[in-house]
Amino acid sequence: MNKKKAIVLVSGGLDSATCLAIAKAQNYECYAISFEYGQRSRSELQAAKEIVAAARIVEHKIFSLQMGELGSSALTDVHIKVPEEESEGIPVTYVPARNTVFLSYALAWTEVLKGEAIFMGLNARDYSGYPDCRPEYVAAFQQLINLATKRSVEGGIIKLETPLIDLNKSEIIKIGLRLGVNYGNTVSCYQADESGRACGRCDSCRFRHKGFVDAGVDDPTRYQL
Amino acid sequence: MNKKKAIVLVSGGLDSATCLAIAKAQNYECYAISFEYGQRSRSELQAAKEIVAAARIVEHKIFSLQMGELGSSALTDVHIKVPEEESEGIPVTYVPARNTVFLSYALAWTEVLKGEAIFMGLNARDYSGYPDCRPEYVAAFQQLINLATKRSVEGGIIKLETPLIDLNKSEIIKIGLRLGVNYGNTVSCYQADESGRACGRCDSCRFRHKGFVDAGVDDPTRYQL
Repeated sequence: MNKKKAIVLVSGGLDSATCLAIAKAQNYECYAISFEYGQRSRSELQAAKEIVAAARIVEHKIFSLQMGELGSSALTDVHIKVPEEESEGIPVTYVPARNTVFLSYALAWTEVLKGEAIFMGLNARDYSGYPDCRPEYVAAFQQLINLATKRSVEGGIIKLETPLIDLNKSEIIKIGLRLGVNYGNTVSCYQADESGRACGRCDSCRFRHKGFVDAGVDDPTRYQL
Repeated sequence: MNKKKAIVLVSGGLDSATCLAIAKAQNYECYAISFEYGQRSRSELQAAKEIVAAARIVEHKIFSLQMGELGSSALTDVHIKVPEEESEGIPVTYVPARNTVFLSYALAWTEVLKGEAIFMGLNARDYSGYPDCRPEYVAAFQQLINLATKRSVEGGIIKLETPLIDLNKSEIIKIGLRLGVNYGNTVSCYQADESGRACGRCDSCRFRHKGFVDAGVDDPTRYQL
């Protein structure tokens, strides 16, 4: 019998690496998708390639978007500083409609492949408060999937799987370590340098480091300092 | 007082040209968005540029997608023949998740511009039965918008406007002619030649020609035959 196919969004960070390991452990035939969207941290994409190579899955597609030219986020516009302290509200690292664009590409590829699931490492606990990481957003995208595609109209099911959504970072790390994820290969920092070393100060670095501490394991992150 | 901003999806076809005229008539400051997605008919994009230039609006962005490499549609894969007779079910010209990808880009740009509306010339009457043209799809995308963006979470409203959704082609044409649309500039054919001349046989050509006949006006389409 053919295995069921899943598309997994792989950013190069800790969450998506764990998510890929979970999809594999659930016995899906996995296809990875990543995006070059003008992100400031290019080493993130290099990390995605290494994570996917190590996972030995069927295929990895990297789509180049032109979202960077829209500007308006600290992640894609070098003129906006990445904050290094906690802030109120949705931070400037929010990229307009980013997850919606990512998921729409994933949906297109899933339909072409006749896949049954899209895995995304969204997390609504140790995160920065982005609107497109919340469970209600996931539910709305699932509803869209059910109406948008020829495959769904003809009775096929494409499920948006977000297995990390309710977990905190230390829980995610413990699951990943059990599944053999090498977190030394992952880059979470919003402003990692070219060789993937983390700043240790941005939101994403702080959540990540606390996760390793809370999980009681060594932090394998390579830091700039 | 500043005018409200709207993003209008302009494909180069009859519906989107009419939709742009409607958005302008509603006194929006309009920004046009088009996509190079590997479509077989490249003259469509040329038509989009001419339509936008004639409308004299603020800006026209054309995004290059890599959807063509996914294949699986007669519109993007030259190995699949464009049907020239009516068929049952969703035809092979359906492009997987195309409107979802288009709308996600439009949403990103709308948020950056602080726009209040996205106009799209979707039509659920004289169309080919694509799932992502139906009113329930539009409602699901609106729900996604309401949850996906920083702007909506902070109380701003972005409305997905589909003024043509319930109209038939002849009604659309009558509105457009009243608003001064030059339909001779538009290309609807799924397999127009390089200079934009239509085949006269595909679904899109048939719906279009019948629209002009029903509206009782001359069909300005340039045909290959």
